This record gives sequence, C-alpha cells and structure tokens, in this order.
Amino acid sequence: MIPADTASSESASSKPRAHQAMGSGHEFDTIRLLMARWGDLAEDIGDDAALLPPGDGSPRVVSTDACIEAVHFRRAWLSPYEVGARAMAAALSDLAAMGARAECVLVAMVVPDAWREVLGEVADGIGSQVRAAGARIVGGNLSRGDAFSITTTVVGAAPRVVRRHGAQVGDLIVVTGVLGGPGAAVGAWDAQCKPSAWARARFAGAAPRLAEGQALAAAGATAMIDISDGLAADARHLEAASGVFMDIDASRLPLGPGVAPADALVSGEEYELLATVSPIAYAALQGRWAAASPRLLTVIGVVRPSSVSGTAAPLRELLGHDHFREPASNS
Amino acid sequence: MIPADTASSESASSKPRAHQAMGSGHEFDTIRLLMARWGDLAEDIGDDAALLPPGDGSPRVVSTDACIEAVHFRRAWLSPYEVGARAMAAALSDLAAMGARAECVLVAMVVPDAWREVLGEVADGIGSQVRAAGARIVGGNLSRGDAFSITTTVVGAAPRVVRRHGAQVGDLIVVTGVLGGPGAAVGAWDAQCKPSAWARARFAGAAPRLAEGQALAAAGATAMIDISDGLAADARHLEAASGVFMDIDASRLPLGPGVAPADALVSGEEYELLATVSPIAYAALQGRWAAASPRLLTVIGVVRPSSVSGTAAPLRELLGHDHFREPASNS
Repeated sequence: MIPADTASSESASSKPRAHQAMGSGHEFDTIRLLMARWGDLAEDIGDDAALLPPGDGSPRVVSTDACIEAVHFRRAWLSPYEVGARAMAAALSDLAAMGARAECVLVAMVVPDAWREVLGEVADGIGSQVRAAGARIVGGNLSRGDAFSITTTVVGAAPRVVRRHGAQVGDLIVVTGVLGGPGAAVGAWDAQCKPSAWARARFAGAAPRLAEGQALAAAGATAMIDISDGLAADARHLEAASGVFMDIDASRLPLGPGVAPADALVSGEEYELLATVSPIAYAALQGRWAAASPRLLTVIGVVRPSSVSGTAAPLRELLGHDHFREPASNS
Repeated sequence: MIPADTASSESASSKPRAHQAMGSGHEFDTIRLLMARWGDLAEDIGDDAALLPPGDGSPRVVSTDACIEAVHFRRAWLSPYEVGARAMAAALSDLAAMGARAECVLVAMVVPDAWREVLGEVADGIGSQVRAAGARIVGGNLSRGDAFSITTTVVGAAPRVVRRHGAQVGDLIVVTGVLGGPGAAVGAWDAQCKPSAWARARFAGAAPRLAEGQALAAAGATAMIDISDGLAADARHLEAASGVFMDIDASRLPLGPGVAPADALVSGEEYELLATVSPIAYAALQGRWAAASPRLLTVIGVVRPSSVSGTAAPLRELLGHDHFREPASNS
C-alpha cells in the first residue's frame, strides 16, 4: 500500500509536506525508492487513504485506467520510461475528455521480479506526465505478480463538466491533433517491422490533451470523449449517449503521414479528443485556440438526427477498439 | 473503460440516474452485464470519468487497492462471489482506517477468459460490500489479461480524519475484533488442509470496520491504521509515523479459537483497526461502543516514548506482511 495523504487543508494543494515515516520491509523500501524518484511530485505519502486537496468548489471528477504488459503494450516496444509515461497519459486523457484539469493521482502497480530493476525509470515516466499536468501523486498500491501493470486513478476538477450525452443536431464535430499514429506503430510491430519515427512517437509519447479539453469545455462543447477506442467506436458512444447521428466526413480527417482514412478511424490507443460544439461557439473558439494550443482542431463533420443515414453511413460499419474482440496484441 | 458519472450536483448522492447508452461491442456488452447485476448500486455509468457527488464539506479521502489471483488469493480457496466481496472489503477498509464513511467506488478488473462466465458472481460479491457500505459504483475499467485482478478505488468523506502520525505518549492502544483468522486459514490451505469454518469465514467474509472507524474518529482517536499487513507490521508503521513506541502486551490480544499470540501478530489480510486513543477518550467511548458496534474493542497496550524499550520489545522483532519478502502464496 502506498496510500498517502495531502497535508492539512490550508496548505494541501500548494505546498508538499514531508511523507510520514514507514516501517521497514522490502515493500516499503520500494515505496521509499519511488518517493525518492518522484521528489516533490509525491505528497505526504503514508496513510491508508489520501486526503484530497480542498479544491475551489468546482465539480470533482475521478477515473481509473489500467495499462497491462502484453495487453496494452509489449515490453520490446517501449522503454520503461515510456511505459510509465504512457500509462499515466492514458489515465489523464480521461480527465481531459471531461474538460477537467488534473489535481492528483494514485498509482497501483503490479511488479514482477523482472521489472524491479527498471522501476525507477517507470517512475520517472509517470512523474513526467504528472509534472506536465500540474498534478501530484498522493497514493497508490504495490503488489507482486506475473504481469507488469499500472492501474492509475486520476482526480480532477472541472468548472464546466462536458459529458457524452449533450451533442445537439447541427453541432459541428471536431477532433484534436493528427490521427493514425498509434495504429500505424502497432501495425508495424505486429508485422515485425520498425514503425516510422512519427508513428512510434505518437504511440510511445502519447500526451493527454488537458489544455485542449479545458478550452473546448470553456467554449461550450456539448459532448466530448477521448478516442482511446478509436475514432469510429468512440463516435458511436457519443451517438448512443446523445441519441444523434455523427455524420463524419472521412475526407476531412486530419491524417498523419501515410495514414489512410479507414485506418485513422480505427487507430485505438490514441488520446486525441472528439467533441461536438455549436457553430457559433466554434467560431468564437477558433481565435482563442491558436493562442492556447499548438494542436490542430479540425472540423470533421456535423451532428444529424439519429433518423438520418447520412453520407458517412459506412462509418457506422467500422468497428473501433474492443478489448474482448480483437487479438491480444493491442487490445 | 467503464468510467461513469454521477448525475448533476443537485441529485448526485441521493438518486441514481439512468446510465448513458454505450455503443456496441463485447467489452460494452460485459459492462452492460455488470450494470444489470449491480442495478441501482451503479450510478450513471458511461463517461470518460465519474463526477463525484458534491459532499457536505467534510474532507474527502481516496485510496486504491489491488486484489490479484495467485498473489492475494487462490481460486480454489474462494468462490467468485467471495473474491469480489473480499476485494471490495479490503479497499473499503482503507477508508475505515481514516475514520471515513464510503461514498463511491470505481472497479478496474482484468478478466481472463476463464473468469468470464463467473463475472456476474464476482460482481454480486462486489455489490454486496458496496451496498453494506452505503456507497455507489460510479466507474471503473475492464481489460483482458492472464491473471484475474480487481483494483478498486474508493472515495469517502471524513468529518474528522485520523492519520498515522498522531499517537501520543500515554494513549491506549486498541484493536477491533478478534485476531488470527485469515492467517490460520491461509496457513491451513498452504499445508493442504481444510481451515476451520471460523478461520475460513474470517478470510472469505472479511468486512471493513467502517462504523468502528467512524466511532473511533469521533471519539478522538489520535492515530489509526488497518492491520492488513499484520498487527505487528502495522503497529510499526504507527510507531514510525508518530515517533513513539507501541508497547503491546501480547497476552491481551483478542485471539480467535486456536490462535497463538505470535500468529495473531503476523496474520495479514486482516481488516480490523488498530488505533491509539487517550484514556479519557477511551472511557467516553466505551459506553457508546457497545451500542454502535457488536465488535469487540480491546485495549492491548499503551504508547510509550520511542526511547523506551518496554516489555513488548520482542514485538519489534516480529515482521508482519511484506509483499516483496514472502512466498507468493499470500503476499
């Protein structure tokens, strides 16, 4: 158990406190190693549960996400640092999709003996994402086991929460970034080839779109989701939740180098955001976007009534990512 | 991903909302199966992250805990229902140890094919503990993998948070319940014997001491911890955090049938609470305790200055549970 605790209410979110001393034992030595690696990113570790910082009255959101060796990645694909960074990025992406900023995280790891010696590098990767997000590590859990995994819990705050069910007919459908990299990288690895540097970087260096999610929320986005299951599958979640038809024009997709539209639609493990936003809000957002983010924001379609089978109907036939359907390589 | 979301602020904690519709796919079919099993215990599942209920201004605490097949239990030991119940009990125990009540939980499961058909029973076990705790299931995560595991995140609220570092010289050391059952059960299984019905029930039917933790917190307990690592090891955590010596009289331990004091000291996976409380607060607590809880509360020692090596010094030599030290059977 790493469970931790953040200071007293007055100082919790601004000033890290010394961790509580722990008893001896190898498990606690490992926790001390992680604490040393994380430095002031880890806050006051050592209780059965962590105290959340008091917050500013904004709604709190929480999410949990697992990253498992041989399920979400293979060890040959990524450095230990990248494994840690990617796991944390995936979890933080769920906060981005709600329009939230990140506040604190808990890190539960299952550590086989073969991973013990690189655990410090994994911790550095985790820490890099926590630092970039402006968050703190407040607790977690350590277990032995046969398969390395990181299960991350993230807590954030969102002045305006954006959910999946608010898409309105007539809204524009927008997506951040450039698509298809992770799918291209995994496809190359599965074919025993070396992925392009671009595709590899998109898989190994995934970054949550926290600033973009907050900008979209502030601008009035009506529904939002990250496309970790692939754009097509995640568009179908928005359709189901909102009771609409997401009329996506595949020719408008922002494609990475060498990526075909059909591949971009099903490239899972991608942490861009898919959102719906009214045309008026989009116009207002455009000016602010360039200043707030270097990321592309691309209009790829429009929200129609669910009764319409529009120009993009074939999209509905394309399945995205499904953990219980595809081969184990990257489900 | 099961991430979920609890209603709007006004109604979140009292009234469950319908879940958002999700797209098709086997993973989401599995989520729908879980939702059907949990009924109104699961609240408004379907976003990337879950919205926490607004709360009453009490400090919020959060903890994460993993329960892994072949690490924390063997499948032959427990029914699927018991696996689910025990995993959730272990996580909720961390809230009990802070003096918190449970509010909501997130359930991340790794599900090998061999566990698919009993997942509904696992869900029922999880649900039984969530219901008993008066909490709700607001999100989670589903992955395939080779080893079944449940990693639970629990969120609670504590009007008065009790941590590990507040034990004062002169405080009484108290423990809830009767000790040694889980250790006796695991010992029997490891020796290819059948545990006693009592020992088995203590392992398989573990229950978090939420009411007891809140009563101890309200009475002014100065430090508290659950004894999931074993009483001796967890006493050493309180010692280290508080800078004191926990002078425990092994002859006062509340022992289960056939349990020796030395075995009770190292029986891990036990979800009783170890707390320190001033003699005056203890006297005031005694009258209320019997009414509030059927559980024993036993004074087992007194807090001394760390410079003292008291009568119980040999306790310091007894190691408790250490995930990275002991054989895999029950680390």
